[in-house]
Order: sequence, then structure tokens, then C-alpha cells
Amino acid sequence: MTREELYQQMRLKKTTLCVGLDTDYDKIPECIKSQYGDDKAAAVLAFNKAIVDATAPYCIAYKPNLAFYECYGSAGIKCLEETAAYIRSKYPEIFLIADAKRGDIGNTAKMYAKTFFEEMDFDAVTLSPYMGTETATPFLAYPGKYVIVVALSSNPTSVDFQLCQEDGKPLYQVVMEKMMAISTPENMMFVVGATKADKLSEIRKFCPDNFFLVPGVGAQGGSAEEVIANGSNDLCGLIINSSRGVLYASKGEDFAEAAAKAAAATARL
Amino acid sequence: MTREELYQQMRLKKTTLCVGLDTDYDKIPECIKSQYGDDKAAAVLAFNKAIVDATAPYCIAYKPNLAFYECYGSAGIKCLEETAAYIRSKYPEIFLIADAKRGDIGNTAKMYAKTFFEEMDFDAVTLSPYMGTETATPFLAYPGKYVIVVALSSNPTSVDFQLCQEDGKPLYQVVMEKMMAISTPENMMFVVGATKADKLSEIRKFCPDNFFLVPGVGAQGGSAEEVIANGSNDLCGLIINSSRGVLYASKGEDFAEAAAKAAAATARL
Repeated sequence: MTREELYQQMRLKKTTLCVGLDTDYDKIPECIKSQYGDDKAAAVLAFNKAIVDATAPYCIAYKPNLAFYECYGSAGIKCLEETAAYIRSKYPEIFLIADAKRGDIGNTAKMYAKTFFEEMDFDAVTLSPYMGTETATPFLAYPGKYVIVVALSSNPTSVDFQLCQEDGKPLYQVVMEKMMAISTPENMMFVVGATKADKLSEIRKFCPDNFFLVPGVGAQGGSAEEVIANGSNDLCGLIINSSRGVLYASKGEDFAEAAAKAAAATARL
Repeated sequence: MTREELYQQMRLKKTTLCVGLDTDYDKIPECIKSQYGDDKAAAVLAFNKAIVDATAPYCIAYKPNLAFYECYGSAGIKCLEETAAYIRSKYPEIFLIADAKRGDIGNTAKMYAKTFFEEMDFDAVTLSPYMGTETATPFLAYPGKYVIVVALSSNPTSVDFQLCQEDGKPLYQVVMEKMMAISTPENMMFVVGATKADKLSEIRKFCPDNFFLVPGVGAQGGSAEEVIANGSNDLCGLIINSSRGVLYASKGEDFAEAAAKAAAATARL
């Protein structure tokens, strides 16, 4: 998907929302669980489909976090594949992000790129940059696909290393500058956490064109309005993620309806 | 597995070798491939079993890299599970490492810990530390299990960020010190690349007790002898990995025999 196609969708739906499909079996409504007995992966798939059908008009992207699928072994990966295929076939306009936070040497990164872009047809993969720019390089060879490098995350211990200073620059800036040097805004985005909304306008100065994927809105305490005010570029340049706030808006039989309402109210443009 | 049990095995087998099961279908001998037609994951499993049976007397650990299994989707994960189960049941003394380089917020890290320690019964998981100490915390709660945090890797672009200086200290040292502060040598190890053998003795000074998992020997240019000379502590404290040098020692029908010979000649004590 080109950036222009992504922007078209944002203008049409008037939102920057990405729904994080971090589906935790223990938080799925009883009315779904009771239909699938011990088959947890099947319950997760059914829940995902219902959430997607309810929220697709109000979001531009979905972002399953791999950990929530890998925990069921091969059955979980099948559930992930089927979730992605369901979205792809029914809502082809949607931007599909594998939240995998991979990051390995070039030889291995190539296998990951193949997995997410060829086997599973995701539009983008999140990446942890600790091992350097070669963690990203193999992903950049796929036209219309993106890597989303974690720069400044929204979790409490993000400060442990991401704020380390190299020649007066924080590590996240060093990461972004080195990654920008090997890529273009048509294949590179960055994770920039919403819990640091004040930092967003600062970061926009040295990174004006790339999309930011912004987690941390809702359950983690960030405000979508603040993010849009501080982090937008001329064209917006933001994909704002909400996971728990949408998925578990209700634990009752009205869970899908409640998710739709929560999605419609989050990250509107 | 306790450290003492790991040391017992090293003394018994007189080696510190870990065989990296980064099995690439394209590099498997024809004599295996021809038996499995299009079922690549089945060929990988058969190859892994043959390699394990041949090399188990000459190594103390196996380390499958997840990327080489995920690329076949759910069939690949099944192959990984079966490889791990095969090693567990036939060679229970072996230390089993999931080379996953995961690294995510606490909530997600907990799911990964469950996957690798409960669902698949690995002894250790490799971790990328960019998102801070909470990427490791949930793993540390499992007695007898280890996280292996990437500190200084062996790939060319490891210098991009790992050598950034914070108050005169390289980032990898900041990472190791923060991780050591929340753990013990009974649940924390570090990846320290062999292509920087000169750095190993320096690192031993501020990290005397933890095991180092050392990649980069063989195909990547590092020397096991140099690593042992520079990186050992009183008890050894090293797990030296070789992947391609063992797996693909021969492409002929004698591949298992050749792998055994290569394993027997690598990282001897």
C-alpha cells in the first residue's frame, strides 16, 4: 500500500485509528468462550472476526501483537494467519501491521521479511533496532511494504536505554536518523509512544515526513487529541493505536457494539 | 536447569558448544529433501533429528532461531515444537535455547515467557533489550529458566547503536548493568559476539559471574580458542554457538557424520 492510499483511507473514514488485536483469551466475553470449549485459538479467531466486522468502518489499520498468538503454539499461528486473511479478503483497504518487534542479523531478518510479507501478506512489521540497521534492510526491498522501527516506546522502562545520550542526542534520535538514512518515508515508519506527547513535536522537527505509529493511547494513559495536536505533519502522518480500550469496551453480549462505539470515538480527524 | 547442572554437562562432555539449529531448507542435503517432496517443514524436522542424534555427544546446548521456523507459518511452529520435544525426550541433559530475540512491554513479555517456558519448555530465550528491563522481568519469575539478553552482537551493524556512549560507557554495558541489577546469574545470561574477542576480557571485569552466549564463531569469523582465552571466568561461563559450520559441514549423504566431526572439533575444553 502506498502512503497516498493510506491517506485516502484516512480522509474517507476521518480517523487515524489502528485497532490493536492483542486478544487475550482470559478477557474474551463468556458468550464467545462458551461456544468453543477448550479450543482457545478458535475462540480468539471468532472474537477477532466479530471485532473486525464491528470496527472496520472506524479504523484504518489492525495490528495483531504476535505474542498473543504464539502462546498457543502452531494453533495460535494458524489463528493469526486466518485473522489476517479474513481482514485481507473482506476489508482490502485496511493497513495490516504485524506487531512482532523482531530484530536480528541480516541473514535472519531476511527470513522474517519473507514470513510477514510473503507468507502472511502483512503491509508492515514492527522492529526492535538494537542490532543495527541491518535488522531493517531486507524488509525495505519489498515495494509497498513498511518496517515500523521502535524509536520511543510508551512503556515505563522505555527510559532505561532509549534516552541514553550519545553526543547530546537521545538514543531514539540516533536510531531514527540512522534508519532514515537507509530508507524513505514510503518504506519506513517509527513507533513513538503517546505517553510522551510533549516529545512528539520535538521529534517532528528532525523527522517531518515519516508516519508515526503511536501506542499508549487509552489504557496506557496517552491522549489521542494531544498526539494529533503535537505529532501531526502537513498530511497527518499518524497512526494511533488503541488495543484494550476497544477490544474490551464491554464484556457482555454487546461487546462488538461497544467496541464499535469506542473505535468511533478514538483518534477521529 | 541450574548453572551447576550445566557445568556438570560441560565437564562430562568437555565442550562449551551450542549447535544453532538455524535450518535453512535450501541448504539441506538432497538426500533428505527428496524424501519429503513439497513438505519443507517435514524435511527440516528430519534434518534436525539427524543432526541432533549425530552431535548430541559433542555439545551441551541447541539453539533454534525462530525465524527459520516461522517462515513456514503454523507448519513451521509445529516443526519447532517437535524439534524441541525430540531433544527434550531423547537428550534431557541438553540446555535448550529459543533464539527469539523478543522484547516487548511487560504485559506482552509475560505472554512470550508463557509461550517459551510453559508451552514449549525451553530452558532459555534470547531477548532484545531496547524497550528496557521490563522486557526481561516476566521471564525471571521461572526458576531454572534463563533470559539471554543481547548485549554486544556479532553482526556488522552491531556498532550502530550498541557502542553509543552514555557518560563514557558503551550502551551494551549500560544494558548489562541494568539487567544485572534486576536478576542473578541463575536466571540471566548475555549474548556477547565472538567477532569482538578482544572486548570479552574487558566485559568480564564488570560481569564476572554470568554466562555469555557467544555467537559469531565459524562462518562469521570468530575463533572459539580466542573466546575461551578472553571470555572465561573461573568456571568457564561460556556457551559458544556454531550454526552453519556444523549444520552444513557436508551437503552429501555423510552430512550427519560431517556435522558430528565439526561439532567435536569446535569449542572443546
